[in-house]
Amino acid sequence: MLSNIRIILINTFHPGNIGSAARAMKTMGLSDLCLVTPQRYPDPDADAMAAGAMDVLSNARLFPSLDEAIADCSLVIGTSARSRNSTSNRPMLEAGACADALLKESVNRPVALVFGQETMGLTNEELEKCHFHVCIDANPDYPVLNVASAIQILCYELRKASVRFNQKDIQPKTEDYPLQEDLERFYQHLEQTLTDIGFIIKQHPGRVMKRLRRLFNRARPESKELNILRGILSSAQRASRLKNNND
Amino acid sequence: MLSNIRIILINTFHPGNIGSAARAMKTMGLSDLCLVTPQRYPDPDADAMAAGAMDVLSNARLFPSLDEAIADCSLVIGTSARSRNSTSNRPMLEAGACADALLKESVNRPVALVFGQETMGLTNEELEKCHFHVCIDANPDYPVLNVASAIQILCYELRKASVRFNQKDIQPKTEDYPLQEDLERFYQHLEQTLTDIGFIIKQHPGRVMKRLRRLFNRARPESKELNILRGILSSAQRASRLKNNND
Repeated sequence: MLSNIRIILINTFHPGNIGSAARAMKTMGLSDLCLVTPQRYPDPDADAMAAGAMDVLSNARLFPSLDEAIADCSLVIGTSARSRNSTSNRPMLEAGACADALLKESVNRPVALVFGQETMGLTNEELEKCHFHVCIDANPDYPVLNVASAIQILCYELRKASVRFNQKDIQPKTEDYPLQEDLERFYQHLEQTLTDIGFIIKQHPGRVMKRLRRLFNRARPESKELNILRGILSSAQRASRLKNNND
Repeated sequence: MLSNIRIILINTFHPGNIGSAARAMKTMGLSDLCLVTPQRYPDPDADAMAAGAMDVLSNARLFPSLDEAIADCSLVIGTSARSRNSTSNRPMLEAGACADALLKESVNRPVALVFGQETMGLTNEELEKCHFHVCIDANPDYPVLNVASAIQILCYELRKASVRFNQKDIQPKTEDYPLQEDLERFYQHLEQTLTDIGFIIKQHPGRVMKRLRRLFNRARPESKELNILRGILSSAQRASRLKNNND
């Protein structure tokens, strides 16, 4: 599903960022990394940052220009932090909408998400080759995401979009929960014990049991846990009964 | 709005990740970074990766233990990639739901999001101190997110949640929850009571308390409910003490 979505890095300065990009992509299930005129590649720093994503890194394709990297794509979205001059402007998408747009179209053809050089970002000329721009919502006082962080977030949104597309796989619960009648026996046992140990006399009984029912219903004890709780109640009853017998 | 949300890093091995965390936080508007026993801090590698987030980094607070870092928090969520053994398990949230939960409650009290050591993640003991776990949906064949990437994604979701919150799509929690330190006192009281009434002798003590912690963490007692539970424990102790005196 995500294999038709291409991540393109242009003029990357730090090779470590190329490795981080490969790792970020693989964690989210993307694999098509394209590099346009990187400063240093291949490079040991890239390998180090790729960690378990060496396959994505070593399958990266090199292109002499953005034009060639996007030639077979039907949709190209460029990352942009700044608002540009009017002729470079494109409709601005937020990250989730960007992911939806890419995913919808990747079913038919390759699509591309383009990242510029670390400090400068995409040039106006590059931005103008895009159908849309995407801007990750960030702190207006410091919106300066590392390129690897930006890739991680957008790949994460792509994965979320692919889940929205696939859906329908909900897993059944595997925990063993008690029957409702066993739970009722527990509540009776609890109320009896609270009476035995002299707790319930001091307070309004109905209200305490309501509160406790609410608490345990929320907790949803599993069968094993309910057994523990019943055991505790029996111990408390025994302790208080022995005391009363000895009185 | 995001100022009551605390990011806690435990035993961080690479100081660069602390700097990256500070940067990831600041880009999304978070500022409260807490470090539990980092291997090296302060460190020039942390400064280099923090870039324009030196203020967040230099305001980071150091703690000798997780307990102390979360003492004044009412909600604690731990990051977990693996499924754990049953007693360490907590209800698992996906990233967006985790952000909503933290944000709702941060209106009233500090809340915490906890990250473990880079390679090992959180220990079972640390995971058991959490109300919920959060797992970032990832490629099942390689779900290995760098800790800085995980922080970036969760801070990004927190920022998105704060936008939803401002648009009134999510409502603040109004329940009054006890602080983590009050909850710890309850667990001590519970263990003592179970010993007094002779319940804990019969079983392996550690395992029972783990199970009960899991149960009550899931229930998330409100402050009033915790008072009821403390009252019950006191009654049980009194009942058993009277009995022992009379023996």
